[in-house]
Amino acid sequence: MNHASLKRDTRAFACEALVRCQRLAGFSEDNGSIRRTFLSPPMRDCYREITAWLEPLGASVRVDAAGNLRALYPAENPNAPCLLIGSHLDTVPNAGAYDGVLGVVLAVTLLQNLSGRRLPFAVEVVGFSEEEGVRFGVPFLGSRALVGRLDDELLAHCDQHETSIRSVIEQFGLHAAEIPQAAIPDNVLGYLEFHIEQGPALESAGLALAAVEAIAGQTRLELTFVGRANHAGTTPMNLRYDAMAAAAEWISTVERRAKRTSGLVATVGTILVKPGATNVIAGETRLSLDVRHKADQIRNSAVGYFIRQAEDIARRRGLRARCKVQLDQRAVPMDPFLVKQIDEAIASVGCEPHRMVSGAGHDAMILAEKIPCAMIFLRTPGGISHDPAESVELEDVVKAIDCGSLLLDQLASSPQFLSGTQRA
Amino acid sequence: MNHASLKRDTRAFACEALVRCQRLAGFSEDNGSIRRTFLSPPMRDCYREITAWLEPLGASVRVDAAGNLRALYPAENPNAPCLLIGSHLDTVPNAGAYDGVLGVVLAVTLLQNLSGRRLPFAVEVVGFSEEEGVRFGVPFLGSRALVGRLDDELLAHCDQHETSIRSVIEQFGLHAAEIPQAAIPDNVLGYLEFHIEQGPALESAGLALAAVEAIAGQTRLELTFVGRANHAGTTPMNLRYDAMAAAAEWISTVERRAKRTSGLVATVGTILVKPGATNVIAGETRLSLDVRHKADQIRNSAVGYFIRQAEDIARRRGLRARCKVQLDQRAVPMDPFLVKQIDEAIASVGCEPHRMVSGAGHDAMILAEKIPCAMIFLRTPGGISHDPAESVELEDVVKAIDCGSLLLDQLASSPQFLSGTQRA
Repeated sequence: MNHASLKRDTRAFACEALVRCQRLAGFSEDNGSIRRTFLSPPMRDCYREITAWLEPLGASVRVDAAGNLRALYPAENPNAPCLLIGSHLDTVPNAGAYDGVLGVVLAVTLLQNLSGRRLPFAVEVVGFSEEEGVRFGVPFLGSRALVGRLDDELLAHCDQHETSIRSVIEQFGLHAAEIPQAAIPDNVLGYLEFHIEQGPALESAGLALAAVEAIAGQTRLELTFVGRANHAGTTPMNLRYDAMAAAAEWISTVERRAKRTSGLVATVGTILVKPGATNVIAGETRLSLDVRHKADQIRNSAVGYFIRQAEDIARRRGLRARCKVQLDQRAVPMDPFLVKQIDEAIASVGCEPHRMVSGAGHDAMILAEKIPCAMIFLRTPGGISHDPAESVELEDVVKAIDCGSLLLDQLASSPQFLSGTQRA
Repeated sequence: MNHASLKRDTRAFACEALVRCQRLAGFSEDNGSIRRTFLSPPMRDCYREITAWLEPLGASVRVDAAGNLRALYPAENPNAPCLLIGSHLDTVPNAGAYDGVLGVVLAVTLLQNLSGRRLPFAVEVVGFSEEEGVRFGVPFLGSRALVGRLDDELLAHCDQHETSIRSVIEQFGLHAAEIPQAAIPDNVLGYLEFHIEQGPALESAGLALAAVEAIAGQTRLELTFVGRANHAGTTPMNLRYDAMAAAAEWISTVERRAKRTSGLVATVGTILVKPGATNVIAGETRLSLDVRHKADQIRNSAVGYFIRQAEDIARRRGLRARCKVQLDQRAVPMDPFLVKQIDEAIASVGCEPHRMVSGAGHDAMILAEKIPCAMIFLRTPGGISHDPAESVELEDVVKAIDCGSLLLDQLASSPQFLSGTQRA
């Protein structure tokens, strides 16, 4: 099978995949925009719809106790191991149609593309119930259940209406007591996920697909400069303790360092000013900082530099700087064997192999605690995601389907993969 | 009379003045903090209290149709001209006890200190009803009435409850139709105002008093940087259109230029960020800029520079900058003759004469349209005003009273002043 013939076969599947994403986009909590949070009523419509796609392909579909859609496409052999392929079904508010959903739809398409052919491993399509963390402020509820981390403590976690995760599960008609059965068995070989890049890197490089080699580690901190509020008209420049000017100097410092450190991203996305009036010098500014890199050491070193710079700026200006680290999450490498296999599959569909780091968190990050994981990113036009304007190119979806189908064939013929010996 | 004897006589008056400020502070709309806006119920208590201080001194007291307290202390001669002395009685929310009020109280003290002696000019003590602009967003309502600018258009201006200035006046029991009678007659020689500096300059220079030579001109503008919101984790530094980073660069530019321009103050006191999330690059920032200087040409040149810099920064970063000038108010010079007289009076009480520019607006700015005006600033501990911690030193009040009394004597013996020939 060469690339040209693959393309002719898969174009129809790619069109259908995009139509299916749009169909799922219609299942929303909001009128006129997409919002589908954990176990919300439209999630039931998703299950019904996707089940109707999967059952004719020979998959047996269930919804586990954490609300994940699980569809098992059997292997040639009943005792064969299993490969998970999927993504998440929940969305942010005012979402696009592809973030998460496209990965689930493409997993279905890969089964379609097998045309009934069985592989030496079963394929389980997973549609995770919760990845975005919208309703409970805690992301990855679905994938946590697969690694045994949706525990009693987390189940007691409440949303803003004081409703716990456990209650939501029970009210939906599921049984929290059965969550342990959602955990993946020992014979799972790995997890593959297609996802839109959600950034401009692939578009900027003129590439359709990339293998994700790692999910970046992340530090979030809150920085406060405490100066002295004063009258903007009566306080000479040299007698000011201006928390806004200090913040500005620091933001520029952060940007400069991030720009000169390869692969580092550092973002000040919020600033609150007290008292916050046109004619009053800022007495206090509170800023958020988000720092990510694939190498924890580089990220930690940058964070240390940013904190020291804040202290220096504050000292030099007669202010105080306070820093609170709110998140310090290590980088998660993807499975090197799977990443290499993806490189090969990408090359086989006529694309230039490209590896990148995911700056965003994904379910693969959670599953990687237990099983080999890898992701394939699709170019995101304009880098726009979490927005109604989110989109994906039909040609790129064609390539993703071909790449995924080739990847399944490569893995099916890899004794190393089938025996699980690629694992460290 | 030498300085030492003056001090002994006036210390008791200074103590009483401070006690009177505290007494007026008790007349508040709020429990536990000071707020006294235009024609609010506690304003009636102020009128009653101040009237009770003034009538025994031989002054005839009225409240004009704009709510200004007007107390006429007659001259030696019934046809003599008149000098206004005063300040405002309204306050900001959570105010201190001295801003405005001290100037009215000291005007009363100057009459006390005359011990019944009449001058070749009448003295009218004025307690302006509205200077801060809290309730209607428009300041100087009281002094506008004195120069004939509290007109029908302004009277129709409404507060946030859709109540017009005219209604508030009528509801208080005053008659808007009589506002023309609040205007000052042609025989007014000038206006003097004592006011706390509201800034740290005098304290920093180790001085008690200063003559205000001008009220700074002021530009207020709103600047918006429009970039592109994007994912903080997935957007490389070189592919960002970060409105926060642009804002930071501009704030630093503003601060640098203001620091190197003598007498210029420039303040970014507010910033609003959209969307304003830790993990989202800012797509838009909206900032306020407040620029003041005694020379309009220097202020305008700085404002032009700030706007050009914003445009340059935006262009270089691929953003757009939008600028909206919200206020462009010329500087108002104080009367040179009166300023010189104040210099002399300050020197006579043993202080170093010092001139300064008021960065804040004052009623004197409005009255200067019609009559010679001058102000005397008192050192403000910590530069703190518009705050419950606002204070003033007893010793400085003693000096202010002595200075004011000497100034009245100087003016009483100045044929130039009495004939009004000092005016341009």
